[in-house]
Amino acid sequence: MRVFIAGIDGYLGWPLAQYLTARGHEVAGIDKLLRRRWVEEVGSHSAIPVYAVYERLHAFRERFGTPLTFHEGDLLDYALLCDVLAAFQPDAVVHLAEMPSAPYSMIDQAHAAFTQHNNVIGSLNMLWAMKAVCPQAHLVKLGTMGEYGTPNVDIPEGFFEVEFRGRKDVLPFPRQANSFYHLTKVHDTHNTMFACKTWELRATDIMQGVVFGTQIDEMGDDPRLRSRLDFDQCFGTAINRFCCQAVIEHPLTLYGSGGQKRGFLPMRDSMQCLTLAIESPPEPGEYRVFNQFEECYTVEELALKAQVAAAAVGITVEIQHIDNPRTEQEAHYYNPDRSHLIALGYEPTHDVAAEMRIMINDLKAHRDRILARRDALIPDIRWDGTRRRSQVIGAVLTSVKS
Amino acid sequence: MRVFIAGIDGYLGWPLAQYLTARGHEVAGIDKLLRRRWVEEVGSHSAIPVYAVYERLHAFRERFGTPLTFHEGDLLDYALLCDVLAAFQPDAVVHLAEMPSAPYSMIDQAHAAFTQHNNVIGSLNMLWAMKAVCPQAHLVKLGTMGEYGTPNVDIPEGFFEVEFRGRKDVLPFPRQANSFYHLTKVHDTHNTMFACKTWELRATDIMQGVVFGTQIDEMGDDPRLRSRLDFDQCFGTAINRFCCQAVIEHPLTLYGSGGQKRGFLPMRDSMQCLTLAIESPPEPGEYRVFNQFEECYTVEELALKAQVAAAAVGITVEIQHIDNPRTEQEAHYYNPDRSHLIALGYEPTHDVAAEMRIMINDLKAHRDRILARRDALIPDIRWDGTRRRSQVIGAVLTSVKS
Repeated sequence: MRVFIAGIDGYLGWPLAQYLTARGHEVAGIDKLLRRRWVEEVGSHSAIPVYAVYERLHAFRERFGTPLTFHEGDLLDYALLCDVLAAFQPDAVVHLAEMPSAPYSMIDQAHAAFTQHNNVIGSLNMLWAMKAVCPQAHLVKLGTMGEYGTPNVDIPEGFFEVEFRGRKDVLPFPRQANSFYHLTKVHDTHNTMFACKTWELRATDIMQGVVFGTQIDEMGDDPRLRSRLDFDQCFGTAINRFCCQAVIEHPLTLYGSGGQKRGFLPMRDSMQCLTLAIESPPEPGEYRVFNQFEECYTVEELALKAQVAAAAVGITVEIQHIDNPRTEQEAHYYNPDRSHLIALGYEPTHDVAAEMRIMINDLKAHRDRILARRDALIPDIRWDGTRRRSQVIGAVLTSVKS
Repeated sequence: MRVFIAGIDGYLGWPLAQYLTARGHEVAGIDKLLRRRWVEEVGSHSAIPVYAVYERLHAFRERFGTPLTFHEGDLLDYALLCDVLAAFQPDAVVHLAEMPSAPYSMIDQAHAAFTQHNNVIGSLNMLWAMKAVCPQAHLVKLGTMGEYGTPNVDIPEGFFEVEFRGRKDVLPFPRQANSFYHLTKVHDTHNTMFACKTWELRATDIMQGVVFGTQIDEMGDDPRLRSRLDFDQCFGTAINRFCCQAVIEHPLTLYGSGGQKRGFLPMRDSMQCLTLAIESPPEPGEYRVFNQFEECYTVEELALKAQVAAAAVGITVEIQHIDNPRTEQEAHYYNPDRSHLIALGYEPTHDVAAEMRIMINDLKAHRDRILARRDALIPDIRWDGTRRRSQVIGAVLTSVKS
């Protein structure tokens, strides 16, 4: 199949280009390279070095024997987007080209407005462009499990049957996102649902859990083919940050009690799931939602797993509770479905500890890079709009003996 | 109270400034005057002449004995917005400053992107500005009944208790909007709900039905104080358009079967309801939703009422069905609640026919202006992204004998 990846330079886009190419798909993509700038803006860098685009493309051709068509540009440039889609005529478009950080979107008015404009209008342009030049193509759009928030009932996949005052309907499950970033994904969801209904576009909207990991097998050993791995307060997600903290023997830091429960999945599962979606497209006019995660854990459970994984490779780290910079529930019911991908053949990686050991081993080589930006590990962007560095608030758990 | 009106030059903003001032409130406002340009852009003009801002302000001072503080500007200009709110220190902010037309938002990619950017980022800026300079003020935000779409169950006011797989929660009622414009209001709803929860802002989100009417008593006879009345396919709403059609003896045109059921309310009820909301603010952190309409009617029922009202003032008009330029359900269940405003004392105007007679009499003086832009009465903006003028498709109903 011909697969177009928007956001092909990113944490998931770059490995996905390799994964799909290794499976025999033809890949092209677009990226404005903004993630590189955002991480720099918040005072950090990727733990794993990120090579210049021309070096990445050169290595790609060497490894896969085929060039990767790359466009430097933006979904906000509607004319460019139409041109590149018209030229490539994709069977599927994977849309990963959004600003993906909740804290970044909460910094101030300018960052909130940038995030909502960039994500919502970029995605809206993608809908119009697909309608205009490739209306049969399948849009695989990255949403987030964070769209649903933490309701006190089970979370279905996108829709649920409602009985209200004796009548029934199947309705979109209510969304209660908790940052201006997560809200952009809610807005995209509503726009995409409408475009499918009205224009007969076909879309899979992926409510993805938090991804972690440094590797997929297809990357091989070439450092130019590796993906980025961020650990700063904005772009570093929980497990990735824990593994970077472990490597520099920094305490693993939990926001508040660490009782926040979320769905997580390793990068290799994300690749597997996105590919299942791509290779089994919905019908024209169909808008379907996949909840995409391996399993749900509290952040504290994951820190304990990371502590054990670190011990297994000879690193002893404590776990600390720091005051939570976010306004969020720290203890709540959480039981989302994820049967749609299983039905398509998704085989979850259950050994999270093994994945963490791989990560810590990978990251040991980049210990100095993490140390050089260790300040970025502790949050100071607060949901109330102020900046104040989080302090240690809770008892340190007994560390595992190595 | 000190009430700041964003969109004070508009169809509702201008009469609201007068209504509130007459009740003893102190009013200031902002407007970029874009509605004047949009109506011109789609080839039309207001049936009732709209005076220049300086003339409006002069007449305002003459009638009410107090100047109206007016700022020409845009909610997209965040620094200006903060300045004017900080200077006025409002008790309430009524936010009417959005692009309000579904067809305008469906013209093409550029109009859809403009609409979503203007409305979503403008409203987002309002939230940040209020947080920054008047966090105790009450935001009265204009949403639309169109956010809910036409579900097959009753429509509550914003929230409903859900029982799902044996557990319960109170959740936002699902939104299924049917144009890129209506979707902006859904996006605003989610952003506003989050800001109230996270920042302790207080807001009333008004899910308003379709407003009609040319008068409120407070306007008196000064033509400079009259509000605009649009009849074009973008900015003319159903009853306003029917009354303009009646005045030029043009058939009243229904989109498709005319079985679309909606909530409607006269302008004087809209003023009454907005004022009830303003004068009974919610608690800090409270986000409440009011469904605001007098009664639900099918569009066909309203055309029949307009036909009778026209007959009563000596005008005979036919009713025609034209092909529906929108993708929408033309026969559906529709039963929304509207108890919150009734509980605050809202007394609905039940005599819709009397209101229509007032409108037709008012509009007779502007017959030539409507005739001059009669082409704008028939839609050609279609939900599939094309432009094609709607044709008569259905039997013409027997007209009422005058």
